[in-house]
Amino acid sequence: MSKLLIVGTVAFDAIETPFGKTDKILGGAATYIGLSASQFNVKSAIVSVVGEDFPQEHMDLLTSKEIDIQGIEVVKGGKTFFWRGKYHNDLNTRDTLDTQLNVLADFKPVVPKDFKDSEIVMLGNLHPLVQLSVLEQVNNPKLVVLDTMNFWMDNALEDLKKVIAKVDVITINDEEARQLTEEHSLVRAARKIEKMGPKYVVIKKGEHGALLFHKDQIFFAPALPLEEVFDPTGAGDTFAGGFTGYLAQSEDISFENMKNAVIYGSSLASFCVEKFGTERMENLKHSDLESRLQEFQSLTQFDIELTPTKTL
Amino acid sequence: MSKLLIVGTVAFDAIETPFGKTDKILGGAATYIGLSASQFNVKSAIVSVVGEDFPQEHMDLLTSKEIDIQGIEVVKGGKTFFWRGKYHNDLNTRDTLDTQLNVLADFKPVVPKDFKDSEIVMLGNLHPLVQLSVLEQVNNPKLVVLDTMNFWMDNALEDLKKVIAKVDVITINDEEARQLTEEHSLVRAARKIEKMGPKYVVIKKGEHGALLFHKDQIFFAPALPLEEVFDPTGAGDTFAGGFTGYLAQSEDISFENMKNAVIYGSSLASFCVEKFGTERMENLKHSDLESRLQEFQSLTQFDIELTPTKTL
Repeated sequence: MSKLLIVGTVAFDAIETPFGKTDKILGGAATYIGLSASQFNVKSAIVSVVGEDFPQEHMDLLTSKEIDIQGIEVVKGGKTFFWRGKYHNDLNTRDTLDTQLNVLADFKPVVPKDFKDSEIVMLGNLHPLVQLSVLEQVNNPKLVVLDTMNFWMDNALEDLKKVIAKVDVITINDEEARQLTEEHSLVRAARKIEKMGPKYVVIKKGEHGALLFHKDQIFFAPALPLEEVFDPTGAGDTFAGGFTGYLAQSEDISFENMKNAVIYGSSLASFCVEKFGTERMENLKHSDLESRLQEFQSLTQFDIELTPTKTL
Repeated sequence: MSKLLIVGTVAFDAIETPFGKTDKILGGAATYIGLSASQFNVKSAIVSVVGEDFPQEHMDLLTSKEIDIQGIEVVKGGKTFFWRGKYHNDLNTRDTLDTQLNVLADFKPVVPKDFKDSEIVMLGNLHPLVQLSVLEQVNNPKLVVLDTMNFWMDNALEDLKKVIAKVDVITINDEEARQLTEEHSLVRAARKIEKMGPKYVVIKKGEHGALLFHKDQIFFAPALPLEEVFDPTGAGDTFAGGFTGYLAQSEDISFENMKNAVIYGSSLASFCVEKFGTERMENLKHSDLESRLQEFQSLTQFDIELTPTKTL
């Protein structure tokens, strides 16, 4: 079984959407990535940090999903990273109302010995220097996938560029891709990002789906058209968890197989937004995922017979 | 060979985009629909009106594409409908700078005798009462497709609702679908529109693709990710021309075949935006279309083997 190493936040979120609000609930990029990847037959581990206030039941949840938690440091007397945000009416944009770094401020990631030989490394959203430190501790992984966001472009661009230069795949949203490259066209933005390092570029467009770029090839996965998006928190991380979990399970990192990985990622993300926080992902059955993949098939597959032409 | 009856404007446009501007050039919904549908083996005719200022070369162009123009009335001493618009930097929005209705103001459409028995009727964007008048002149078409826009929702909503009640398919953009139904979710909007009459609802999302709804089924076609969109004018009409042209040629109006029609429509629209006005569509070869369809296939088709589950 392949090993998947996940680095990212394990945290508390307080979320407000037009449909309701929550107090402090379980959140964090690594949490969503791990829950999503747990749908696959992989050996996964999270590298992160929490405070003493982090409840045992959340740790138990991760363990129950067969996620190795020995790389989650618990800082005595420390407080867990906390984020409070409020989504606007269209759910495409949000305001950060409060960010308390707490134990994250001095986080020095330690990759467990058992996972230094992980085949796939998923660098979830965190300070680029933390992501770099994890990369320095692993031995020649087959695939390194990076997720990041505009916050690091604004505050740690040079460090971020160093990580980008070292990864195989980057997942980034459309506005961030534009900010990073100063190109409006996503095709051009992806080309520029490929020149910065990654051989594969995934541009996430939220409700408008996701694009996978590799050299001259492009693949597109729509988001499932939903009657109601309840809470978009963690959708991007859930996508990343599905993408890497599927690749780790199938042990095939070709572009053709990455197409499937993008579809798995999109399917899993479509569940994540159906309820607040991690609730839907905690209770997701494999049969739910199978029938959603079926929906993606009928949503996107068509049957046009093409005449071979000279241009092919 | 099936007959396709097209009603809509044949007009002059003056267009400004971030990439340049044009003087008065050939435009109009029926022009774009006709040029697009001319890629298929169908017998098509345009019902429209122009002024005496409309150049013979434009008429000749339509004839050279085997479009029947006997239903295009030429008003002696009249002036052709003229629209001037300027696109914003992202090309998703535009300002109308000038609209001169001219001969369109008193247009009474006359369907040529030969085309009263058309299998497919494409009601391009025009006053709903003109669209209704065309419907009253045809004998039991197999499929009626309506395109409209927010202008008629603002100015002739009751008439528009009468047309909507009589058609099989409506094509409408996302913001217009939301305006018409007061629903933000496009899934809900499509359901509400189905209740107004059409059995099939196509929601166009511009650079984000198009959705086809029918009862509980949804199909999605992406827009081709382009390095540069030069001029979006006519893209929606070109989509409609490809959609109806393909359906007329294949003589199959099932939902499964409409999926293909949406892909053809999207492929043709992706050419339309590559140059100003009708230029790209005038010179489009069938082999160009075939290789673009191939691009749509590799863009969207994937190969996930699903385990049959109990839910299926």
